[in-house]
Amino acid sequence: MYSTEKYPSQILQEAVEAIASLPGVGSRSALRLALHLLGQTPERIHQFTAAIDRLADEVHYCHICQMIADADTCSICADRTRDARTICVVESVRDVMSIEATGQYHGVYHVLGGIISPIDGIGPSDLKIKELVNRIDQMNAEDTVLPSTPEIILALSGDVEGETTALYIYRQIENRGVRVSTLARGLGFGDDLEYADALTLGRSLLGRQPFKP
Amino acid sequence: MYSTEKYPSQILQEAVEAIASLPGVGSRSALRLALHLLGQTPERIHQFTAAIDRLADEVHYCHICQMIADADTCSICADRTRDARTICVVESVRDVMSIEATGQYHGVYHVLGGIISPIDGIGPSDLKIKELVNRIDQMNAEDTVLPSTPEIILALSGDVEGETTALYIYRQIENRGVRVSTLARGLGFGDDLEYADALTLGRSLLGRQPFKP
Repeated sequence: MYSTEKYPSQILQEAVEAIASLPGVGSRSALRLALHLLGQTPERIHQFTAAIDRLADEVHYCHICQMIADADTCSICADRTRDARTICVVESVRDVMSIEATGQYHGVYHVLGGIISPIDGIGPSDLKIKELVNRIDQMNAEDTVLPSTPEIILALSGDVEGETTALYIYRQIENRGVRVSTLARGLGFGDDLEYADALTLGRSLLGRQPFKP
Repeated sequence: MYSTEKYPSQILQEAVEAIASLPGVGSRSALRLALHLLGQTPERIHQFTAAIDRLADEVHYCHICQMIADADTCSICADRTRDARTICVVESVRDVMSIEATGQYHGVYHVLGGIISPIDGIGPSDLKIKELVNRIDQMNAEDTVLPSTPEIILALSGDVEGETTALYIYRQIENRGVRVSTLARGLGFGDDLEYADALTLGRSLLGRQPFKP
């Protein structure tokens, strides 16, 4: 008799366990996916794993902003039409993709690669904060004629970890000749006032904007 | 700007597309999984893909019942305590696992590897039906002293494809000295009579059993 722990094949079991190690994939889904893969030709399975192996072997990280890229410099940092003196600091690659999808941002990024979280054992030295400070120092050193003040946008989550990380970074860069801003907090589009939490509604009031009809 | 089709890296995009080719995994989930993998060490990623590559390269199929196995004979067919003269015919590896999990079956299996489905272009010759017939013929040829009549249990789905496949197999084996049975259809445990569909309820009535208090 097979229980959930007993499989007809050790090889199948190991594949299921590997797939179930992915976040949000339970052992039943993992079994379904493993059996799906098993039903494919060996060539198809190898194509699948080769695409994932390349994540380990061939992905580059931009030497400027730490974003993933196919070369040493990512396509955003390499884009001369973007404002290299506005740097949006984000937690992850995914945040860059989310902000790019808005089409509202024309500066560059700095990917921290995580967020300060004592519970998870992630401290400031685990993040690319030193790289950000170096980047600012280098930008200031290069300034020649009529420099505009660089702007650093701290686009981090609104939770405790995000606020902690933002504050830590702010302390590192506040005296380095940059303007530091953060994302507006407030009601989302389509949000109902009645159901907004008090903190969000309060921030929305404090950050009120001139009405533009 | 990235849309859902535009990724910061071609390599990431190809990994996302590979993961999204799995059934029930959308492109957003696939991106989340790919970025999770990207956050792992190269060693962990290679462990992950190696476990899946082994599905392509090292899984065996039992030469008797076509079940997946780590050797030429699966652990069920190799188990002398099981009744080799009762063969449960199922569609897939998963069905074997489901039946084994009940702990109610002590015979052996025959895995068809699919079900007759003209819409999907799957005909009888794509399934391991000939192997089943050969297996029955061989069993009959080996019979020596006081043979019991072998039983073939057609444990297929209750849908049109399952019924078609069961009927096809029945026609192939009806004159080969075997008893052919099928799974009981009826109300499930805990099912409410009021909500049962008419077909299931009708079958449940026709297949009524002596009441055992």
